[in-house]
Amino acid sequence: MTHTAVLTMSYEIPLADWTKAISRSALQDMLIASARPEILSFALGLPAAELFPTKSYAQSLVRVLSNDQRSLQYGPPLQRLKQQVLEIMELRSVHCREEQIFLTAGAQQGMHMLTRLLLNPGGRVIIEQMTYPGFQQVLQPYGPTIQTVATDLETGMDVDAVERILTQDPRPSLIYSVPDGHNPMSVSMSVEKRRQLVELARRFRVPIIEDDPYGLLFYGDSCMPPLRSFEQDWVCYVGTFSKILAPGVRTGWLVVPEHLVAPLSVIKESMDINMAPLNQRAISDYLGSGELWDHLPVLRAEYRRRRDAMLLALEKHFPTEARWRTPASGLFCWVELPAQINGAELLRLAIETEKIAFIPSFAFHAGNGTCSGTALRLNFSSNSPEVIEDGIARLARILHLPLFAG
Amino acid sequence: MTHTAVLTMSYEIPLADWTKAISRSALQDMLIASARPEILSFALGLPAAELFPTKSYAQSLVRVLSNDQRSLQYGPPLQRLKQQVLEIMELRSVHCREEQIFLTAGAQQGMHMLTRLLLNPGGRVIIEQMTYPGFQQVLQPYGPTIQTVATDLETGMDVDAVERILTQDPRPSLIYSVPDGHNPMSVSMSVEKRRQLVELARRFRVPIIEDDPYGLLFYGDSCMPPLRSFEQDWVCYVGTFSKILAPGVRTGWLVVPEHLVAPLSVIKESMDINMAPLNQRAISDYLGSGELWDHLPVLRAEYRRRRDAMLLALEKHFPTEARWRTPASGLFCWVELPAQINGAELLRLAIETEKIAFIPSFAFHAGNGTCSGTALRLNFSSNSPEVIEDGIARLARILHLPLFAG
Repeated sequence: MTHTAVLTMSYEIPLADWTKAISRSALQDMLIASARPEILSFALGLPAAELFPTKSYAQSLVRVLSNDQRSLQYGPPLQRLKQQVLEIMELRSVHCREEQIFLTAGAQQGMHMLTRLLLNPGGRVIIEQMTYPGFQQVLQPYGPTIQTVATDLETGMDVDAVERILTQDPRPSLIYSVPDGHNPMSVSMSVEKRRQLVELARRFRVPIIEDDPYGLLFYGDSCMPPLRSFEQDWVCYVGTFSKILAPGVRTGWLVVPEHLVAPLSVIKESMDINMAPLNQRAISDYLGSGELWDHLPVLRAEYRRRRDAMLLALEKHFPTEARWRTPASGLFCWVELPAQINGAELLRLAIETEKIAFIPSFAFHAGNGTCSGTALRLNFSSNSPEVIEDGIARLARILHLPLFAG
Repeated sequence: MTHTAVLTMSYEIPLADWTKAISRSALQDMLIASARPEILSFALGLPAAELFPTKSYAQSLVRVLSNDQRSLQYGPPLQRLKQQVLEIMELRSVHCREEQIFLTAGAQQGMHMLTRLLLNPGGRVIIEQMTYPGFQQVLQPYGPTIQTVATDLETGMDVDAVERILTQDPRPSLIYSVPDGHNPMSVSMSVEKRRQLVELARRFRVPIIEDDPYGLLFYGDSCMPPLRSFEQDWVCYVGTFSKILAPGVRTGWLVVPEHLVAPLSVIKESMDINMAPLNQRAISDYLGSGELWDHLPVLRAEYRRRRDAMLLALEKHFPTEARWRTPASGLFCWVELPAQINGAELLRLAIETEKIAFIPSFAFHAGNGTCSGTALRLNFSSNSPEVIEDGIARLARILHLPLFAG
């Protein structure tokens, strides 16, 4: 080896090829920026910490730990918790069996595992043009072909476009969908489109990953039935305790066709061995008290109050050209601005001059297409109505600057 | 589409290609078998639940939850816990910086993430012929080329063989090593070989994943320095609280070159968003009390007592042809039996007639080579000396059956 050759070689550990595509996610950057105490953040999908049933959960933890030291041991998934998940699924009009439930360390892990199970490197997926970045991150190491469809702000995913893709190019590895409280666009898919989408999944034999973190956070009289309620063989449902109990319990679940459970166990073991018995038992103890059934209406009432405060503040302060709808569920308002506004510049100014954070629409854009228009994803769950009113007023001040109002 | 074509098509969700290679791991099967209450299990690497500092940890959980409700919120990695990890690493003679620490949901997640970071699909790795099945599972989805080297029962991994491979075939993606309390063979690598191995890593620019769950569980006067203490640029160290605190806290750490931390954060976010603040804060609170420094000698003394009970029972009951050594660290004895004994048959009979579980050597065999000889991995940490004496006596009865004693 010549001296020159040595000099030009890297002395750093070489990484796998896919890592060349890594760029820090907008969400991760926002997490850092919005953690600064002086920032008023509408950026992240944080549930309201002051509503967590902290005292009850602490009591459950202590009860479990004093009853059985093996709660801190390795252990298999907790059957009783799976049965309690069945009851929660009944609230979503989903009738399923314990053998179809798989416990995960939150919804993100559920999606990660399902993708591992379904997608070959270089495989093909159908997602929306605006898609939760956490799912885009899951896809990244596979270097997949991404086919995108539009999302209608009244009725959700363009299911006709899905059909056109499937007709031309059958058998992609998966379709990803967030029918309720869509992240980021906060639309809930019409029931007609839900039926149409599961019919396509059946007809073309393509699995759907149904991401449902917000289905129980609805602000009308009732929730809409998820895709899984119409179809059990082709829908892999992803649920989580993060938004109805607390993210810190790091527990979610999948409802899948039974034949997927054995390979999912192998994937889970290779990822982190197993769920911690302590968390599972404490959640089960908390659920056993029945408190969740009283907690859910409290959550919905408070989040509705915050949503309405945000809608009112938008009405009062935002420029007349801005457009938004009333979200039927979830944690976000999606506010469309005139096309000439630069989302990145707006965010920079908002953080610097008004100490307000949000996520601009470009951060959600999937695939290689271009973004048309600028929109803001504004979270309403993690601040009080008073703080929301103040924050929207401050954000509006930026929009009224000549730079943007021009 | 003709009717016939429809009839021959699968109506199940098609899985990614790599899943064809899935077979339930022996460990997973043992977890199920040994969970039956009537089974006396030497199968799994379970730490002793009765030694967990359950009361102190419960107090830490309650203290953390009553101080800050945001302990149940999403949150970034806890800086204070990283600093405490630095102190633990000092016990292992490793001097590192906070910027080199990455917190994980246990050692398994650490290995999973490092492999994602380092290995391309179809890439090449160097591991030992007998390798922890959990790491083999991590490799499986990549369909890698596996090059194996032997393990000497006195001095550990055949490092000369590693050098021969590297000379012929430079730049594999990684080398995997368990220098202390090797799983399954329970040998600790000689210091001379440790120096030789890191020298190879440097020379050939190949990263080593150093899996060190047992380094602080040593039964002599002191522990041997890990690979990371000799080399910081080419060793990715994997540590865990599972064996020194409890598996149920689901927390471990990596010590890596700093340039790996940013891409590891992206991988972690895609896998399960983040560590739970509650667990991190509770562990940090427990460590802050200083109790771990008193707990470690207690653990070592009790595990040594159990190890010695197992060695004594082996001496007393096992056939004279059986061979074993005194493990200097870790949780296992490795007992070699005469070559004609069928490990699978022995396990079946042991479970059926004597209600004893263990893991036979074939379950650890990596790559495509054949197993020479039969050995048993016997865990000594999870049973009392009295139970160990009884279990080894019962297991020996099977070995003395005409079938095996031939």
